[in-house]
Amino acid sequence: MRVISKPNEMQTNVESLRNEGKKIAVIPTMGYLHEGHTSLIRKGRELADIVITTLFVNPTQFGPNEDFEKYPRDFARDFQLAEEAGTDFLFNPVTEDIYQDGYNTLISISGITDKFEGASRQGHFDGVATIVAKIFNITKPHYAIFGQKDYQQTLVIKQLVRDFFFDLSVVVAPTVRESDGLALSSRNVYLSPDERTKAVILFKALDEAEIAIQKGENRRKILNAILHNAIRSIPEIKIDYACAADADTLEEPDVFLPGEHVILMIAVFNGITRLIDNALVTIPQDPQVKKHYFV
Amino acid sequence: MRVISKPNEMQTNVESLRNEGKKIAVIPTMGYLHEGHTSLIRKGRELADIVITTLFVNPTQFGPNEDFEKYPRDFARDFQLAEEAGTDFLFNPVTEDIYQDGYNTLISISGITDKFEGASRQGHFDGVATIVAKIFNITKPHYAIFGQKDYQQTLVIKQLVRDFFFDLSVVVAPTVRESDGLALSSRNVYLSPDERTKAVILFKALDEAEIAIQKGENRRKILNAILHNAIRSIPEIKIDYACAADADTLEEPDVFLPGEHVILMIAVFNGITRLIDNALVTIPQDPQVKKHYFV
Repeated sequence: MRVISKPNEMQTNVESLRNEGKKIAVIPTMGYLHEGHTSLIRKGRELADIVITTLFVNPTQFGPNEDFEKYPRDFARDFQLAEEAGTDFLFNPVTEDIYQDGYNTLISISGITDKFEGASRQGHFDGVATIVAKIFNITKPHYAIFGQKDYQQTLVIKQLVRDFFFDLSVVVAPTVRESDGLALSSRNVYLSPDERTKAVILFKALDEAEIAIQKGENRRKILNAILHNAIRSIPEIKIDYACAADADTLEEPDVFLPGEHVILMIAVFNGITRLIDNALVTIPQDPQVKKHYFV
Repeated sequence: MRVISKPNEMQTNVESLRNEGKKIAVIPTMGYLHEGHTSLIRKGRELADIVITTLFVNPTQFGPNEDFEKYPRDFARDFQLAEEAGTDFLFNPVTEDIYQDGYNTLISISGITDKFEGASRQGHFDGVATIVAKIFNITKPHYAIFGQKDYQQTLVIKQLVRDFFFDLSVVVAPTVRESDGLALSSRNVYLSPDERTKAVILFKALDEAEIAIQKGENRRKILNAILHNAIRSIPEIKIDYACAADADTLEEPDVFLPGEHVILMIAVFNGITRLIDNALVTIPQDPQVKKHYFV
């Protein structure tokens, strides 16, 4: 595995690899890698000839009161995990090379970003779209691989790729979980042992709502109530949002129709740590119990 | 010459040409080609193996009260001029394929866009940056060629390329002029015979200011006054702006230093037609008359 820090050196390498006919996959990360990230790297290994993992804690996607400064960093560990998972190039730039002196350009995405993470974290997705566009132009991938855990982010990136004609495929890989169901996250390191135990309620709440859908529940407000009620069983956890939405548009109809894809999304504060999780569910054509079906 | 309308078909062609090692130049235009554009196409022909001319009247760079609807269009003439000048691919998309249903993404550039054209035409440069980023991703050029006549636009595009790491060279080619000095522009077709005669004052004003610089004038306000006084000799022409600025940053120091590059820029309304022109001048190390030099 080769470590590259300079954008132009990365570009020269990928341009020459592309000219040799090699297929390139990029896995953009903020480092502090875990099994969620390494599953994405292994996915890249399956799809492409060359796998680039990027490590960059992107300042423009953090709000003024967020955890940019204290976001966990461990280059030696990231190096080892990235290499073991099959990375060819570890792109590890400094902030000054990505946001050069006098930088003045931002990508702004509306619509899909108005709600949920976009509403709770003003400017977050503009920062995400901007850094991802830079990484795409630096690494020139055929495949860009993202985790489903940041579900709304995957929609934002698909919109970016479509609107700007980036010539690549966006691949979304499933969330990796601890044995009790907690979604892996670099931010889990912030949790106290007690908070860690309680954090499993996100998965449990998603699971309850998913079971309800399989049994025929298709009313959005009822699904939201199932999520809220489950999380409220742990009073220390404060809900930011917990809701069901159309998985493609994030629209919120009263009732979801058979065959529609629904995204169940949760964001909470567990102590001072903000955690998110989600589940993608398809409304059954033939639910197990036709309770509320086209009432 | 081959005409292509679909973005993905254009991409497939350039990707395959790049894989053959061909160098690609793109000349983005809004059509209604004139000798200014064809000089850019010939420049592309010199630099690259494959020349792509794009024709697209970009709605997002026009303000609500501007001339989008009546902007002149003539595909048959553009086809002939582009082919004669040495175009390999004429990319001629429809609006719906460039701004697809549900598009929600905009590039926003600050700083360099705050003044002059950016101030007079709110949102103009965001529209320019957005369409140019799309064209770059669709045509994947090694060289992108623009005319100096839209001087501030060339700075915006250089900032876009730098901030987003587009792997290409921006080439700026000189303004082409009529025999009396009027800069070629698709909008000149709007001018009445009388307005056409009077329009030469832009070139004359730039010429006067340039002569003053060669003779040692380096004070910005005096240069601005020379431009204003010259244009005011034609009372029917209304000045939007006429001024000297640092050619790289558009900053406006009181005095320009020897060796500095100065851009003299003019925008006027000639009847209802908005015209712009500019001249790039270097402050002499040894002016012909040391009149105001380091007073």
